[in-house]
Formats: sequence, C-alpha cells, structure tokens
Amino acid sequence: MVNASKSRAKSLVPLFRPRSVAVVGASRRPGAIGGQVVANLLAAGFTGPVYPVNAKSKVVHSIPTYGSVEKIPGPVDLAVLVVPADQVLKVAESCGRKGVKGLVVITAGFREVGGEGIKREEKLLAIARKYRMRVVGPNCMGIINTGEGYSLNASFAGTLPEPGPVAMVSQSGALGEAILADATAAGIGVSMFASVGNRADVTAADLIEFWEHEDEVQAILLYIESFGNPELFVQAARRVSRKKPIIAVKSGRSAAGALAAGSHTGSVAGADMAANSMLAQCGVLRVVSFREMFSLAATLLHQPAPKRDRIAVVTNAGGPGILATDALVNCGLQMAEFSKETRSALKKALPVEASLHNPVDLIASADASRYRAALHAVCRDPAVDGVLVLFVSPIMIDAAAVAEAIISETRRRGGGFRKPVLACVMGRQRSLEATELLDAAGIPVFRYPEDAAQTMRSLVRRGIMLAREPAGLTAYSVQRRKVAAMLKKARGWLPAADAEAVLAAYGVPFAPSLRVQDASAAEAAAEKIGYPVVLKAEASKLLHKTEFQAVLAGLQDGQQVRAAAKDLAKRLGRKFKDLSLQVQAQATGHREILIGMTRDPRFGPLFALGLGGTEVEVLRDVAVRVAPLDDQDPVEMLASLKGAALLDAFRGKPAADQALACELLLRVQQLVFDHPRIAEVEINPFILAAEGLPSLAVDARLRLSDPA
Amino acid sequence: MVNASKSRAKSLVPLFRPRSVAVVGASRRPGAIGGQVVANLLAAGFTGPVYPVNAKSKVVHSIPTYGSVEKIPGPVDLAVLVVPADQVLKVAESCGRKGVKGLVVITAGFREVGGEGIKREEKLLAIARKYRMRVVGPNCMGIINTGEGYSLNASFAGTLPEPGPVAMVSQSGALGEAILADATAAGIGVSMFASVGNRADVTAADLIEFWEHEDEVQAILLYIESFGNPELFVQAARRVSRKKPIIAVKSGRSAAGALAAGSHTGSVAGADMAANSMLAQCGVLRVVSFREMFSLAATLLHQPAPKRDRIAVVTNAGGPGILATDALVNCGLQMAEFSKETRSALKKALPVEASLHNPVDLIASADASRYRAALHAVCRDPAVDGVLVLFVSPIMIDAAAVAEAIISETRRRGGGFRKPVLACVMGRQRSLEATELLDAAGIPVFRYPEDAAQTMRSLVRRGIMLAREPAGLTAYSVQRRKVAAMLKKARGWLPAADAEAVLAAYGVPFAPSLRVQDASAAEAAAEKIGYPVVLKAEASKLLHKTEFQAVLAGLQDGQQVRAAAKDLAKRLGRKFKDLSLQVQAQATGHREILIGMTRDPRFGPLFALGLGGTEVEVLRDVAVRVAPLDDQDPVEMLASLKGAALLDAFRGKPAADQALACELLLRVQQLVFDHPRIAEVEINPFILAAEGLPSLAVDARLRLSDPA
Repeated sequence: MVNASKSRAKSLVPLFRPRSVAVVGASRRPGAIGGQVVANLLAAGFTGPVYPVNAKSKVVHSIPTYGSVEKIPGPVDLAVLVVPADQVLKVAESCGRKGVKGLVVITAGFREVGGEGIKREEKLLAIARKYRMRVVGPNCMGIINTGEGYSLNASFAGTLPEPGPVAMVSQSGALGEAILADATAAGIGVSMFASVGNRADVTAADLIEFWEHEDEVQAILLYIESFGNPELFVQAARRVSRKKPIIAVKSGRSAAGALAAGSHTGSVAGADMAANSMLAQCGVLRVVSFREMFSLAATLLHQPAPKRDRIAVVTNAGGPGILATDALVNCGLQMAEFSKETRSALKKALPVEASLHNPVDLIASADASRYRAALHAVCRDPAVDGVLVLFVSPIMIDAAAVAEAIISETRRRGGGFRKPVLACVMGRQRSLEATELLDAAGIPVFRYPEDAAQTMRSLVRRGIMLAREPAGLTAYSVQRRKVAAMLKKARGWLPAADAEAVLAAYGVPFAPSLRVQDASAAEAAAEKIGYPVVLKAEASKLLHKTEFQAVLAGLQDGQQVRAAAKDLAKRLGRKFKDLSLQVQAQATGHREILIGMTRDPRFGPLFALGLGGTEVEVLRDVAVRVAPLDDQDPVEMLASLKGAALLDAFRGKPAADQALACELLLRVQQLVFDHPRIAEVEINPFILAAEGLPSLAVDARLRLSDPA
Repeated sequence: MVNASKSRAKSLVPLFRPRSVAVVGASRRPGAIGGQVVANLLAAGFTGPVYPVNAKSKVVHSIPTYGSVEKIPGPVDLAVLVVPADQVLKVAESCGRKGVKGLVVITAGFREVGGEGIKREEKLLAIARKYRMRVVGPNCMGIINTGEGYSLNASFAGTLPEPGPVAMVSQSGALGEAILADATAAGIGVSMFASVGNRADVTAADLIEFWEHEDEVQAILLYIESFGNPELFVQAARRVSRKKPIIAVKSGRSAAGALAAGSHTGSVAGADMAANSMLAQCGVLRVVSFREMFSLAATLLHQPAPKRDRIAVVTNAGGPGILATDALVNCGLQMAEFSKETRSALKKALPVEASLHNPVDLIASADASRYRAALHAVCRDPAVDGVLVLFVSPIMIDAAAVAEAIISETRRRGGGFRKPVLACVMGRQRSLEATELLDAAGIPVFRYPEDAAQTMRSLVRRGIMLAREPAGLTAYSVQRRKVAAMLKKARGWLPAADAEAVLAAYGVPFAPSLRVQDASAAEAAAEKIGYPVVLKAEASKLLHKTEFQAVLAGLQDGQQVRAAAKDLAKRLGRKFKDLSLQVQAQATGHREILIGMTRDPRFGPLFALGLGGTEVEVLRDVAVRVAPLDDQDPVEMLASLKGAALLDAFRGKPAADQALACELLLRVQQLVFDHPRIAEVEINPFILAAEGLPSLAVDARLRLSDPA
C-alpha cells in the first residue's frame, strides 16, 4: 500500500518539477487567461523553456509560438491547457502522443456543467490513462512550485507567494486566488500550490501523498468542498498527518451550505458530522476560517503541540486576562491549577497587588524582570501544558525588553520551546518592536485573545492526536456462520425476530420476549416471562412504534395484558395486515441509549452511539464516527456527548455500564464488517443498567442491501 | 425618572466639557503618568487652560505649576488626580473647596486592593457627595472628548483617536488603551471615551444616559466586567438602545473568567446567563470580540437593521458562496428563498452556468453589469431581508466598476440603504480600489465571510429588537391577602404543604394529594385519591428527593402502597426525624418542565423556564430572564430552549400546553412581586399535558428571606 502510494506520488513529479512547459491556448488578447499563464511563467522566472502553442498568433509575450504541441522540438513534461472546452480532448491526445507527462487543464465546461460535460471529462480521463498522463483540473486555476531551480507559476493567479514551508490545495479556483493573497499578507511562504478544480484525476489525497516526501513542505493546508475518494483520503491523511500537520477548511458545514456545494443527500447534517468526524479521526485539524488556518499554520511551524489542555495565562492587565480565560474555556480548554511551588515562587517574585492564581496578573507596572520571574515559575510547572502571554504595553515599560524576557524564559536551551507559548499584544502602536521580536523568535502574536485561544485549541488537538496510541481492536467470539446463513436469502428490513436473532448471535443481549398472535396467547406468554411486561405490536410496515402508540408498558397482570392486546388489535389491525404481538419482560435499567450504523455512499459505515429513547432522541445527542473504529473510539464517543453526565452517577443513581455500551458498538462493527450486505442497524432503546446488572436491548432494526 | 436621568447626565458635562483642567501630581519625571497626562492635554490641543499642580517642581512641560489646586487663580472645572493614594482624600477636599465640578482619579490603591482601600474609596465618595463633584475612577486611565472646541485628552492613553461618531466606556484601563488603538486602526472615529476604573461614582449607566443627549454620539461601545447597579443600567440601556445602538463586550463569560473578574458567587454560569439575558432584554448587542465590536459599530452607522433574518448571498465564485452560507446558517440566520419573479429575472440576466438559487453564483466571468442585474432582482425581493455580496476579483474584471454597481444597485434613491448590504472582497491585492469605494459608500467590507455573517446576525438582532412591540403584562386574579397572611410568620424553606398552598393561591394547579403519617393511613388516602398513586417521603431537610429514592411511583393497589410506605420509613426514618408521607395522584401528562425564580444579588429576580424532571435537568436546558417579564417573554424563553422540539408534537404525541407554562411563569412573577420576601421558588417537575388536558405540578419548593 505504501509502495502504491509512493508510485502515485512519483507520478506527480513532472507536474511540479517539469523540465519544460507548453501553454496550449496562449493568447495575445489582453486579459485572456492563456496570455496571463504565459506572463506568470515568465514573471516567476521558470528555469526551463516555456512553449506557447497558438495556431494563429506567431508570437506571444515575445516568444515564438508553435502550431501544436507535437511541433515543439524538445521534450515537454507539462502542458497547460487554456483552449476552448471542445478542443481539449484533441489537444490532450496530441499531448499524449508527444509524450507529455502532466496536464493542467484550466478550461471549464466539464463535469461542473453536467450532461455533455460529464462525458467530456470521462473521455479526458480515458486519454490521460492511455498515455499515463496525470491531470490537474479541469476547471482549475493551475499549479505553483516556488522551489529553487523551478520557480514554476503555471497558473493565472494574481499573486505569486514567497517560497516557504507550506503547501496548499484548493478545490475552488477563486478561493485559491484569495488564500494565496492572504498567505502572502500573513507572511506565510508557500512551496507548492494546486487548484484541483473538478479533480478528474489528481485529488487532495494525491497531493498529500506527494507532499509527504517533499522535504521543503512542513505543513499542508486544504480547502475542500467534498472528498473525492474518502477511502484514499483517509488512508493518505491518517498516515501523513502524523508527520506533517494538515489543516483544512471544509465548507458545506450547514445543510444549506452543503446544498450549495452540490451535495444532494437526505441527511446533510449527518454528512457534515461524518466529514467532521472523519477529518478528526485522520488527524486533520479542521478550522472554520482562513484567518485561523494561517495563524495555526504559522504556529505549528514553530511551536510544540501539548499532550494535555491545561493552559496558563500571564498578563499585565486584568481585563485581557479575563477575556483570555473566557476564550480558552469557551474553546474547551482548562485553566491550569498551579502547584504549591509555582504559587510560592510567584508570591516571592510579584508585588502584593498581583494575582498569583491563573490568570497571573502581573499588574501594569510589570517590567521585563517581572515577566521573566513569572514565566520562569509557570513554564516549569508540570501542571501547565501551554502558556498564553498577554502584554498591553503601558507607557513606562520597555516593550522590547519584555519581549526578550518572554522569548528567553519560554525557550529551551539550544532552541525550540518546551511548551507552546502564544502571545497577545494589545495597543499595538507602542509595541511594534516587541511584536517583531516575538514573531522572529517563533512566538506567534495575536491581536485578540479569542484568536490565540482558537489556535491553542488546535495545538492541543494535534498534541492529543499525536499522543494517542493506536488502540487495538478486540475480536469478539461470535456466531458468524449462523448469521451468514440467516442473511443469505433475506432482503430489506428483517422481521423483528430475525433482527434480534442476528444481533443476539453477535452478543447483543435482548430482554426476554415471546411472539404471539392473540390476546390469550399473550397472557400465557406474560405468565411465563413474569410481570410486569411490555406488549408491542409488530408489523412489517410498522417502523416507528411510538408514533402509533404500539408499545404498552407496565402491564401488571393477565387482565391488563389481555386488554392491551385487544386495544392494539383494534387500533392497528386494520392498518397493518401482518400485525402480531411481542410480549417482553420490562427492562429496568435507568439509561436509554442508541447504538447504530448506516452506510454512507461517500464515507462507508458510520457508527452512532448516543442517548436513546424517544425524548432524548429529539435532542439529537449522538456521536458519529467513520469506520474503522478501534477499542478507544467508543469510549471517546461517549465522552463527547452533551449529555455524557447522564451516564455517570448523579442524584443517587449509580453510573451506567458504559463499558458494555462500548463493547456492543464494537460488536456491531464486527457484524457489519463480517456481513457487508448489512446496510443499516439501529438498537434503540438499549436499556443500560448499572455495572453488574443486566442491560438489555428492547428494540432493534436491521436492513440489508440487495445482493450484488 | 427621565428628569432624574437628565440631571444626572447634566452633572457629567463639566467632566467632558471643562473650561479648565488641573492636573494634580503633574510630574517632570520621564515616564511618570502625571507628566504624560499633561503632555496628552497639550498635544491634543485642549482649548482652555491646563494647570499643573506640583508642590516641588516649578515648571512641568514648560507650564508654571501651582502648589495646590486652591492656589490656581481662575475657576477649575476638572481636576485629574495622579497623586499617591494616601494623598487623594486631602487633594479631593481641596478640590471641593476650590469649587471643582469633576474629578478623574487615576491613582490606584482603592477598592481593588481590599481592606484600607475600600474605606479610602468610601471616604472619597463622601467628599465628592459633600461638594457635589462627580468622580471618574479611581484606578482608571482617564477621559477623552475629541469634540471641536474642547479637544480634551485627560488620560495617559498612548493613542488619541480621530473625532467621530462613537463613544466608548472601558472598565479596564489597559483594554481601554488597546481599544482606542484598535478603533483608530479600524478607521472608527471616537467622540468621547472614559475609562471608569473602580466606578466609585460614574458608571457605564451614567455615561449611557449622558451620551443619550449628545448629538455627535451615534453609537455606544462598552467593555464591562460587571454591572455596578444593574437596575440603573437596565433603565438607561433599555431606553437609550432604542435610539442609539449599544454594543458590549462583557467578559467573565466562563466560570473561570468570572472568577478572574472577581465574581465569587456560587453559580457563575447562571450569573453569565443572567448577564447575557439582561443585555439582550435591554437591547444591548453583546459581541465576543473587539474585532466584531468595531465591524458592527462601523456597519450600524450606515446600514439599516432588518426585521427578519432571511439573507441572500450574491457571489462570483462558488467556494466563498458555500463558506458564506455555512457562516450565515451557523449564526442562526436563514438563507432567503427567492420569489418566482426573482428567479425568472435572474434566469433572464445570467448565463446558464450560473446558479439562480441562493447563494446566487454569477460565476467568474461576472462583470459590473451582471452584478447589477442580479442585485437589482435580489434587493427587490420581499423575501430577502439582507444581502451579502461576495467578490473575488478575477484578473479580467474591472473591480472598481463592480463596486460601483454594488453601491448603485443596493442604495435607495436619495441615499441610504433599503436593506442591509455587507460585502466580502477576497484576493485583496487586485481590488483595493473596489474596497475603498465600498467603504466610502457605507458598505462595510469584510475579509472573510464568517466576520460578515456575525455582523449580519447582530444587525438582525437589533432589527428584531427595534420591531418588538412592548408587550403588555396580564394581571391575574389571585389570593394576595391570603398569601400575605400565610407568609407573615414563616421563614426559610416552607413545609411542602405550605409551599403548595401559596402557589395554588396564585393559580398553580397541583396533583391531588393527601399527607399522612403511616402506612395504613397512606392506603386509605390512596383509596380516596384513586390508583395509580405516587408515594413520597417528606421532611424539612429532605430537599433532593430523587437522591434518596424518596419518590415511589406507579403504585397500583393498597398492598403496594403499604409496602412502599414501610420501605420509606425503614430507609429514611432514622435519617429524617420529621418524616411524613404524601400520597399523590399519578400525573399523566407527557412533558416535565421547570418553573422557577431566584433572586440574584446583582440582577434581582431571575426567572427560569425550561425542561424539568431529573434526566433532562442534567442537560441544563433552561432559559433565564431578569425581571420584569412581559407577556411575550415566556413565549420567547420556551422558543429558545435547545429541546424546544420536545414541547411540540412529535412521534404521534400532541404538543404540550405551552400557553399554560407561560401563564404560570407570569403568575410566579406576580407572586414574587407581591411578596418580596420570597427568595426562591422552584416548581419541578410540572407535568405539562396536551392543551385541554389537566396539567399538574407534582413538586414545589419555596424559600423566604428573613423579614427586614
């Protein structure tokens, strides 16, 4: 797999490090994109020859043109296509014959316009495969490699970034233009850039794999609207993110946004939850805005990612300290609690008016030596994982000296930082020099504490991700063959009894129950099971039982069971022809949870674990993760629930058996891995009791896709 | 009340428009604050005389000094005190005798240091009252009035803002410095500024009232950490915010932040919820960051606030359109659905590849005329309340012409905007001119769609606030005198039966119940009430019944009641000496809610309405508002719940009787207004049935404060 990845990565080399470039559709017309591409190649100073191809004009930007790619005398590694859409296939064939290794197709009018465009894109891809050419685009802005010895700007971008340690992919050409400009404004250098457009061939996943092996690339930035092939993406991102941070803006967070992004599935919110979860599981840091993306990239290049989230704030003014505390807590981080040693060191070093607690307020008179003393104590406290230093420059303090103190006290001897240190300098006018000193030393400077807190949160996420040991995956002993036999001839939604049997064969415990046809049989069944019982109506089309009040609980004796059975038959018998009855022992655990799986066409199996029952379900408190889960995943899913507290002990009730809930989700995973025709599983509610007491499923559904 | 407010406002005039200023503690020492204040006064070009007062130096900043304030020959309106803390009282007395009308006390060492400092602040206030001087500070940075004819910079701020339409209060001196600098950087002019420090006398509320009548002040910006006198603040802000927008950054959002801000109450999260609610009820726009504060201020000065939240996005690039959609939806706004007319107008005007839905994607080839056509249609659609225009400048388009088109198509003839229009221009390099044109026309330009969306959200909030008719307040017929008699001799937590009687006298319906002492009486009571019943243990110290499993529900016959009664006696009899039993009819509604009130020392009565019961309570889904509520408040409170859907019809269950829930909260308000000794009320759970069915309270608590 890694070898396949390496050979895929190698195939992109001629795109980014071509010996020569042809621009097909180079133009003299002012404002034409074809002319702009040639101008950009020349302006950037591409080190090899640039060949404009144009059948009509003889010269473009002072370079003689060629009538076709095949008429170019020397070898051509990269061809940039800016011809009208209906000429692209012909030109691509010609490139193939010429031996071109990579195409950048800027021309639009392919998959994005539907109909004919889709076919045209498929044909383009077929030509590329035939000649083993890699294709960026179509409908893209081009590619850039600022690396020394190439200086390749094969795009019509208005901005050529400075060389630097960051590589970027943009799925949107327009945003690509904007983020190149913003990167430059933020002082971030870019080694390589690709606008991938329709991603007919080269996708973000390919580029991630390519950049894995490029030494000058130290961080990867993505703007994506959708995942081409999620499996490839997961595979590439999961591996590479452990070596180089990957930061993504993924649009389509909202249902309306996803619709605008061309997604037309039923459950868009679910899809974004899945995307979110997938990115997190791959170690990709998802951020909301480009502002955050660039701050984070700049920070990750210099600052370590801590394994825990206890942050200290050191400030010379109370107000900003409070704002920073608010912002950190709001980002889900914790305020560090200092050790005794730290507190006594601070007490010794600071004036009586100062606050020795976190946030440490050095008060306005704090000079470099007071910052030095406080940071010395705080940075050495093992209960501190990261530090946010605030500085509002008062008139009588030497700001540059404070900056020097911050740098020297937070840096490890021999360079680098032992813990992440972010700075927030307010009232800038007076402290430009301080800001420049901090920046140059690798301490990112923010204007507002909120921005610093967001970046700290992402640092912590990365630290936790890197520290998370890949957990194992328990293989449970299950009745695989029995289930295979049961599923062989089944289709669609299984009858309830069969769904239960399948799940039971994989270790899901169900409340004891009997299935009967009439009232007197129900009474007999209830006597056998023991009171109280629950009586449920079952029918193939009766999917949402509570909607039809088809569940009657708390039946205490035979008379009540008979009455309930008659009631169900009377109300539902006409509507559901195959109505039957289930008599079930009333489960007495105290938390209802939901365990489920659906297969997403883009992401594969999505596993759900959350609060169940009808009421809490409305609150939609469910964690979703994409496959494969390891033993640690369900634990993290439960912890992430808003109502996680409901599963812990509270108000005198014991904690629910969370370990069992985790195990059952993994058993469901094993089930759907073993039997790929299972398209959907929902166990809801599962009545989770306290540890040691019997927990039981009381309802479950299971759907099969049609046999292949 | 308004007259009192006017006279309070008038008393601030000598502070901001003094005829002369004395600086007591003016100093020659480099870096000394006293010297900086004099330098700032001179640099700003204060139009009246500045008198440095210094007993030692003869000359400060080339001005001859005076030995004391009383030695100054002419009248002194304003004195700025920069003397050591232990001299402040003496100097203040001297100012009083001199006839000074306002003091700005920059000196620290008062309430903020505790102990002696608190006493010193009280004495300072007493002196001020004696001589009718108003005091800003102590422990502050000073005040500024850029108004023509004054040019007063009586502060040690490093930045003097440009004159302009905004007035600002900062509770933190350091942040005041920073936000003045930021305002200047954001191009926002400031008419007046005050750093209020400890707020011994002048508070944000005073300044809001003062600025109400100052014509050059068009918007008021606050940085606050706590409310001095919430009642005054509410009164001032509620009135003034309808005339001039008030925008606040209120810190102490998180528990840790509130602690850092010096709040030491039990329920900090609750306190911030109350602050949030109070600000919203006063029409104050609370924002999280200063970045948002300045964008919003700039926007509110030029753009109208819409009454509804349906936003249209017009873009020339898909990616930014998706990001904008995500951001708007994430801010709780809606994407407008265009009318047929709009869609057909767009269809006529735009190329086939363009998207006619919202977001409207004009695609990259869009020039000024295409923007013009699209905006013409969209701005006229009555289903559109606000417009966000995105522009990523492509190389071949004249950006300035697009800007002109945006301005002319969104502006009403004769100036002004009919609907708010915000712009987001990306890839700036190429469109500086466009940005400048838009800015100058009053269309705020954002760098990222997320920032524009936040500002749009605040505009909508303001529009809805301004459109909200003040609702009436129903006076319910209640048994006021009966309750007064009942409460006369009571103290602390009322016995359960009394709490029920008080609430019942104000119209809260309770489930029928009888109170008994032993098992056989319980059985007799149950027979009387009718099965099923609930049996509860009651005792004066038994406050959280579920924790002790003191509620046994679903008892079906006499035998079960007797067994339950014995179980309670056995388990709880020894722990709670005054144990008794309540036999209650089992209520059968389907939603449990909570209705409550606590008195906050800072905010007065806080009313709570939310989901009740033990499980959902853990999710803390409760809306809180400060008094007084009107008839519309409870409706909005219910609508704001995360689990609001649980109260609507779902899964075949009918909607809960929300009108009753609203009425009961207002009845509780009437109760606590009528009887101010009621310190706490909690009705939980209240079993809310469907409309028309009996809804009943099953548990309630009521606490009285000690008689005054």
